[in-house]
Amino acid sequence: MTAVPPASLVPAAPTVGADGVVDALALLAAGELASFARLATDAAHAPELRTRIVLSRMAAGDLAPLDRIEQALAGLGTPAEEVDDRIWQFRELLAEYDTRTTPRDWWERLVRTYVGYGVVVDVQRLVADGLDGEAAELASESLADNGLADFVVATLGPVIQAEPQLGARLALWGRRVVGEALGIASRLITTRPSLAAVAGIAESGAGLSPEQHAAFMSRLTAGHARRMKRLELTA
Amino acid sequence: MTAVPPASLVPAAPTVGADGVVDALALLAAGELASFARLATDAAHAPELRTRIVLSRMAAGDLAPLDRIEQALAGLGTPAEEVDDRIWQFRELLAEYDTRTTPRDWWERLVRTYVGYGVVVDVQRLVADGLDGEAAELASESLADNGLADFVVATLGPVIQAEPQLGARLALWGRRVVGEALGIASRLITTRPSLAAVAGIAESGAGLSPEQHAAFMSRLTAGHARRMKRLELTA
Repeated sequence: MTAVPPASLVPAAPTVGADGVVDALALLAAGELASFARLATDAAHAPELRTRIVLSRMAAGDLAPLDRIEQALAGLGTPAEEVDDRIWQFRELLAEYDTRTTPRDWWERLVRTYVGYGVVVDVQRLVADGLDGEAAELASESLADNGLADFVVATLGPVIQAEPQLGARLALWGRRVVGEALGIASRLITTRPSLAAVAGIAESGAGLSPEQHAAFMSRLTAGHARRMKRLELTA
Repeated sequence: MTAVPPASLVPAAPTVGADGVVDALALLAAGELASFARLATDAAHAPELRTRIVLSRMAAGDLAPLDRIEQALAGLGTPAEEVDDRIWQFRELLAEYDTRTTPRDWWERLVRTYVGYGVVVDVQRLVADGLDGEAAELASESLADNGLADFVVATLGPVIQAEPQLGARLALWGRRVVGEALGIASRLITTRPSLAAVAGIAESGAGLSPEQHAAFMSRLTAGHARRMKRLELTA
């Protein structure tokens, strides 16, 4: 890891390098592919037709911005194979969330997707905040609300209200899965210093300091707590 | 099962009843949902990024006509719950193909999807041929080539050419999976006489005679043999 330069040497508004933009867009592309796969799998487990159709459509919608992101990536001058490698690596990292967490029923599945999606989108938003121009516009399109959170709250909220025991189990499950999601977010930001630099949470070319890492994790846990609150579950 | 009326009582061009149109459109909707789920799962198993993206997009594309089919179904006067029940039942039947066949590798997975998709589309085309007006138009949109066959032939063809042993294994596998696909097609057409009536292969309200059933299966196996030939595999 590179040593963190003294704060005075860090520009107030660090310039985002081309490598950082490639990483940021590759992360968006990987997120779309991972979200598509997760929602499509959830749809296949849906207990009835309407839910299945809603989730299948949501999955398909998550894939829609991929086309423009791929075009933008192609215009950045990085060899196509290298871009593909990065998207693939990010995707593999994001997919670990699913292989490490096995829901026991439909409700746990919904909570898993709600929690994991929320953390990934929060990371992507932090990174997207450091983009400008076309990249920023693409990120905003890619991160537009897909309706998943409202759907899960509308579906799960009344069930949790009616069954406190289920609520208690799902709160425990939420802690279990957010642990995995935060672990993946942490690995993402520490193994790709360029993402941290784009997000403005670490200096360009440097790794995260322990304080910067703690601040990053703390923003993610705050976002998670807000989402659990919407379900009236203890985070 | 209703007795088959004498041939002279059967109109030359049997009118398609509303029930038949509902079944035909419900079968299209179920096919789209099943194909979406299968291609999305295949995409998640793809060995590299480009294939994954191609199959994910194909999955999303298969879902696109669902919106209009749902609207058309809503306008036919059948209660929404009944329509949903039919789509769900067809979908469950189509999904049996996947649960009954477990590919051992990526090539077997591609062959399974190629074979199963081909048989289902052939059945849907036979049924669609009996539709007219908006229903016929919707069916034609829904059954437009999604590029899967060309993709599988382009991907798998050279590999089979280069590895005759793999070709021999995939030919055997093709026989195994088409058996399941034909079994499902047979159950579909015999348990839903209205579909057979729309397709014009049995008289309205009657079940299939053994000859009609044999003719139906023979058309499906001919279609399958053509598809295997494109891969230069023995059907």
